[in-house]
Amino acid sequence: MMEFLSGVMKKEVLEISKLSAEDYIGKEVKVNGAIHSIRDMGEVAFVVLRKREGLLQCVFEEGVSAGRLKDLREAETIEVAGVVRSEERAPWGFEIRIISFRILSEPAEALPLAISKWKMNASLEAKLNMRPISLRNVRERAKFKIQEGIVRGFRDFLYEEGFTEIRTPKIGAKGAEGGSNIFKLDYFHRPAVLAQSPQLYKQMMVGVFDRVFETAPVFRAEKHNTKRHLNEYTSLDFEMGYIDSFQDIMGMETGFLQYTMRLLEKDYDRELKILGVVLPNVDKIPAVRFDEAKRLVSEKYDRKIKNPFDLEPEEEILIGRYFKEEFDADFVFVTHYPSKKRPFYAMDDPADAKFTLSFDLLFKGMEITTGGQRIHEYQMLMEKIAAKGMSAEGLEQYLDTFKHGMPPHGGLGIGLERLTMKLLDEENVRETTLFPRDLSRLEP
Amino acid sequence: MMEFLSGVMKKEVLEISKLSAEDYIGKEVKVNGAIHSIRDMGEVAFVVLRKREGLLQCVFEEGVSAGRLKDLREAETIEVAGVVRSEERAPWGFEIRIISFRILSEPAEALPLAISKWKMNASLEAKLNMRPISLRNVRERAKFKIQEGIVRGFRDFLYEEGFTEIRTPKIGAKGAEGGSNIFKLDYFHRPAVLAQSPQLYKQMMVGVFDRVFETAPVFRAEKHNTKRHLNEYTSLDFEMGYIDSFQDIMGMETGFLQYTMRLLEKDYDRELKILGVVLPNVDKIPAVRFDEAKRLVSEKYDRKIKNPFDLEPEEEILIGRYFKEEFDADFVFVTHYPSKKRPFYAMDDPADAKFTLSFDLLFKGMEITTGGQRIHEYQMLMEKIAAKGMSAEGLEQYLDTFKHGMPPHGGLGIGLERLTMKLLDEENVRETTLFPRDLSRLEP
Repeated sequence: MMEFLSGVMKKEVLEISKLSAEDYIGKEVKVNGAIHSIRDMGEVAFVVLRKREGLLQCVFEEGVSAGRLKDLREAETIEVAGVVRSEERAPWGFEIRIISFRILSEPAEALPLAISKWKMNASLEAKLNMRPISLRNVRERAKFKIQEGIVRGFRDFLYEEGFTEIRTPKIGAKGAEGGSNIFKLDYFHRPAVLAQSPQLYKQMMVGVFDRVFETAPVFRAEKHNTKRHLNEYTSLDFEMGYIDSFQDIMGMETGFLQYTMRLLEKDYDRELKILGVVLPNVDKIPAVRFDEAKRLVSEKYDRKIKNPFDLEPEEEILIGRYFKEEFDADFVFVTHYPSKKRPFYAMDDPADAKFTLSFDLLFKGMEITTGGQRIHEYQMLMEKIAAKGMSAEGLEQYLDTFKHGMPPHGGLGIGLERLTMKLLDEENVRETTLFPRDLSRLEP
Repeated sequence: MMEFLSGVMKKEVLEISKLSAEDYIGKEVKVNGAIHSIRDMGEVAFVVLRKREGLLQCVFEEGVSAGRLKDLREAETIEVAGVVRSEERAPWGFEIRIISFRILSEPAEALPLAISKWKMNASLEAKLNMRPISLRNVRERAKFKIQEGIVRGFRDFLYEEGFTEIRTPKIGAKGAEGGSNIFKLDYFHRPAVLAQSPQLYKQMMVGVFDRVFETAPVFRAEKHNTKRHLNEYTSLDFEMGYIDSFQDIMGMETGFLQYTMRLLEKDYDRELKILGVVLPNVDKIPAVRFDEAKRLVSEKYDRKIKNPFDLEPEEEILIGRYFKEEFDADFVFVTHYPSKKRPFYAMDDPADAKFTLSFDLLFKGMEITTGGQRIHEYQMLMEKIAAKGMSAEGLEQYLDTFKHGMPPHGGLGIGLERLTMKLLDEENVRETTLFPRDLSRLEP
């Protein structure tokens, strides 16, 4: 006898949002979940289920509920049949009075972390070592729902703006920007590298789709063990053609932030509340020239300018502080970075070739985006490569594309984990990385 | 003076959909694009612009349009000021009579491929060697818009079904399923590997979010140089908890396909038309047991069963043919694969442990999905690992998660490029991979 699948299976078991939306008060329902905590009060016991939408309070009543309370243990997963009852003190305004329960699975050992506490009493190190368990804490997992919302905002906004999503290879013959921070691997006895950025690919694709984006991992073999560096992270990249100036790129990023804050407010309000996040105002984002920013903070905070061609992390923090104090702005675009510090494909400012038509976006004093206009003429690219003392070796495919016509264009890359970190006011980027990779961490 | 960014910059230049939607007939507008082709008819010349939404016909009239026709060349990007005129024979029912134009960028060399032809006269090899150029062909790029639609469908459908999007690391200490098809790399003087699948991570995350998905690259060092293998591809993965049986997973995949076909019909109709794609019927997808499928094709096509524990590619093709002929079905679930051929985490069928509660989905005779129910009890996992003669080394974090309770669960992985390939009736998976990686190809 042939069986046919005709779509998602209908289930009797209900989710929290369904229970909240419709009036099930007094009705018998079925729910399931993992036992997050049990509070035994003698006559009754509160059995809190962890479900994907939040915590659900169930009540076991001695002599009323079938079965034995002692068969219920933390970390079991169970299915409950029960009656919905209004209860103001319960998380959703209702609770489930247990009629009977069925155990779906049992743990083999007791939990190593008190995940049911509101704030877990564990070091970052301990949390990362037991990541699959520590993430069961309601506050820990909320961070990654918000991170989902950021990526979703990025994509949905760019779809609306006519961008095409692309998937570029992570294994290649040569790194996009050269340098020593490249992971090397053996590719069937040929040397290969992991992509440190989709830069060259997304530029080539501007010639095809005009506007492209990618949300994918990138790999950096940097030997920094800091609170803001990762060796593998998610880069939110876009590249757009037919720009009039690099302001178009900053405008697009501002649009993304506006769209995403609205999306978070609308669809992730539960998680924002759990973490007490206050969303930043992104109606208007100030932009300041690199040299001007250095001057401003040097004056206001009485600090000598050591290197006119680079921003130290401390200076970034002060720029953030300056714009918070002067303009109540959490974000600030710093524009016209020195050519020396930008890669070969960056477009120099025609008004002063020592600077580029590029920018960083700082969020609460930390760089979360690097972007700018790129060179789109073949000849100019070749000259810049020569001026930088670089070789065109390994860049043939990229350069060939420019021989055959490319529109004026530019783009940016956003570090997802850093953006999440600053949004949630975390101190360490590992707090907002599901499974961080750093100098010492390769597991879990 | 301080500058502020307040969102996406307003532009005078119009896109095709905007021009089509509103009545601009007789009005003066500005458009831009890359010159896709020029057809000089003497008095007039048709200058076709390639824009992200399609081709736009502009008309240069000697003595009417300003500037010189000979300044217009293929692969230039230009901005045009002109008047919109109804023209039935033009791609969108209108054309732009050029008043004046401005050159935005010029190519350095003539194009190496005749990309403006409807069907490019180039081998797959040539197309891949010049990928950034060959993709400018309207049919070539349409494939990847449709691919975008598939990924979009996958995500949007799963969001609606309560799944959380996750990002799992691509560099790790050990491969998910072991075996020899793993790329190795040096991670700060420690041995590391590239993820061949997010399998173990997504299972661990079921304990956190109940339902999770990921759309990301995976890496397989397989030495097959076939028309259907890639060494890097995009895997659409989901994993769901609280299942009643592995039918829940097949039901969810059927739902995804139904949602996605509707999305393609609605938002990608232009590309479907360009490529002449007929979407498959996914209202009902038949499911057949592995052993039964083998028997059916052996009988109908008079073919000896050589190996009762494996499906050869030829058998997959015949199963596809059988279900097309008997049920007019393009898709078929083949269920209950032999335990021998499935990894350690596959749940054996309690009715017969030689088989598993797992499935493949075949599309037009090719496997595009592998999925199934997983073992969720720690003890059973340890026994299966022992029975397979495996070591638990390197699996500690994964196994620890199961010590602390996991719901009954299962999931699947879909090869995006293969699914696109079969949907578009292509013969080689490289046709539907933006930048394929295979035994010999590491560039572009």
